[in-house]
Amino acid sequence: MSASKYIAGDKEAISSFIDKFDTFLFDCDGVLWSGDHLFENVAETLTMLRNKGKKLVFVTNNSTKSRADYAKKFTSFDIPVTAEEVFGSSYSAAIYISRILNLPAEKSTVFLVSESGTETEFTAESIKFIGGSDPSYRRPIDPPIDLPKIQSGELLDPTVGAVVLALDFNINYLKMALATAYVQRGAVLLATNSDPTLPYAGGLFPGAGSVGAGVLKATRKEPVVLGKPSQAMMDAIEGKFKLDRGRTCMVGDRLDTDVRFGNEGGLGGTLAVLTGVTERHEIEEAEGTMRPSVFVDKLGDLLIAE
Amino acid sequence: MSASKYIAGDKEAISSFIDKFDTFLFDCDGVLWSGDHLFENVAETLTMLRNKGKKLVFVTNNSTKSRADYAKKFTSFDIPVTAEEVFGSSYSAAIYISRILNLPAEKSTVFLVSESGTETEFTAESIKFIGGSDPSYRRPIDPPIDLPKIQSGELLDPTVGAVVLALDFNINYLKMALATAYVQRGAVLLATNSDPTLPYAGGLFPGAGSVGAGVLKATRKEPVVLGKPSQAMMDAIEGKFKLDRGRTCMVGDRLDTDVRFGNEGGLGGTLAVLTGVTERHEIEEAEGTMRPSVFVDKLGDLLIAE
Repeated sequence: MSASKYIAGDKEAISSFIDKFDTFLFDCDGVLWSGDHLFENVAETLTMLRNKGKKLVFVTNNSTKSRADYAKKFTSFDIPVTAEEVFGSSYSAAIYISRILNLPAEKSTVFLVSESGTETEFTAESIKFIGGSDPSYRRPIDPPIDLPKIQSGELLDPTVGAVVLALDFNINYLKMALATAYVQRGAVLLATNSDPTLPYAGGLFPGAGSVGAGVLKATRKEPVVLGKPSQAMMDAIEGKFKLDRGRTCMVGDRLDTDVRFGNEGGLGGTLAVLTGVTERHEIEEAEGTMRPSVFVDKLGDLLIAE
Repeated sequence: MSASKYIAGDKEAISSFIDKFDTFLFDCDGVLWSGDHLFENVAETLTMLRNKGKKLVFVTNNSTKSRADYAKKFTSFDIPVTAEEVFGSSYSAAIYISRILNLPAEKSTVFLVSESGTETEFTAESIKFIGGSDPSYRRPIDPPIDLPKIQSGELLDPTVGAVVLALDFNINYLKMALATAYVQRGAVLLATNSDPTLPYAGGLFPGAGSVGAGVLKATRKEPVVLGKPSQAMMDAIEGKFKLDRGRTCMVGDRLDTDVRFGNEGGLGGTLAVLTGVTERHEIEEAEGTMRPSVFVDKLGDLLIAE
């Protein structure tokens, strides 16, 4: 396999790369924007791709926002994107539970360790859930009082058949203990994504994978992961958008998440950008499914093909 | 290496085993008691060992209680034990920091993710700390407000040179994010212990290793662990009690913690009991440093040697 090709500034290479695809899957943070800062020429590049008839899908591991929340973020940047064009990891988890997991009716409640964005997607798929942003779970525990009540089942809902771990800024011991207890009693363990870190304000904070790490360690279980680079997410995207994998390109900043997701999904190509967490030498040294087909400095470099 | 020998009921084997040692190191939970239930003949067995002139040391990974708290627990069972005979993982961490780590003066503050028992031991060793049970850390975060302030350093103490992860029933995102930020900026990462689970009320709840797992995952660092089976704890015990390892026996219920701790420490022997988390077939199948020299059903089985 040849090295990744740097194509920024090469109009012919960029045009011929774009022509190979009908669909572009975009990671968002680190590609389109960083937090509240939209990168240069992003809106124009997306418009150029739409004008060429390309289908655009925005694929994010961010579990805290619903698709509608995400579409609003695009609107705030004056970029026309609909909720239907967004595919987030909470939506991916909801789709997996409602259409693939088939929980028995008496075990069909999901215990959510999450923010409200996850709840929105679960509600849209008519999935019963507890936990999430419910303030009654945001309390300190009194071990001699609470732990025996968890053990006896008094604090447990007997209809819980799955636990979903997402990014939760209100993580606490009670939620960790309840999630652990449900999994110990047979609940299926799912995670919206396993990202160790959350890029925010120029720093790397604990991500969903870190917030959920305690439950994995306490239960000694590995979850079914519904975000990139899990192929469960690619299968769900393919099913929803009827895409031709050979004519689809994944665009992202993370080699171990985005690029791997595209390559392991057998997509026709992968495009890496340097506006996120990856540095140029890392792309040049990348091997196997972590190596993108091509890379540019920033997404706006594609605009030259207009 | 021969299989572990089951010696319960065999007065001669028990007497000759006891005679091999001057010092007995005891794990507590699962050996002496389970929660608030003292096992049969434990007090009598400890008295018998004292009457034979044995030195007793109670070694616990429980980080939430100080040595004085632990001594009180013995007193509540009418067992005479002093704080000096207790060696807990928070005390082990305090000793390591004050006597081995030698933090530079300008980086000598420790950020504690812990309950108050850890603070007691740190105070006794004159270690400066922040975090711990301080209620100002027990608050929800507002990501757009708090995360930039962590990133800029506004919410960080520039004198923090070490982070200690212990069992904290008040774990939250703020503490995880602060611990992560300190480690990213060069703080030494320590853990009182790495136990995945906390046995409590007949159940297995998230232990210190699980509560701290998120910080390890977010920072991609492995901590220096100061509890069993880490030999840093054995070295500290040896230093304090001047024990002859060849004439010392470790007594415990966990093969991967207690028995390994004793065998890897080169002790003269290890004794396993079945009153905790380990089942008989696991002892019979144990290999390498997980295999105890001998085992009995319960500590009280030793009383026959009186």
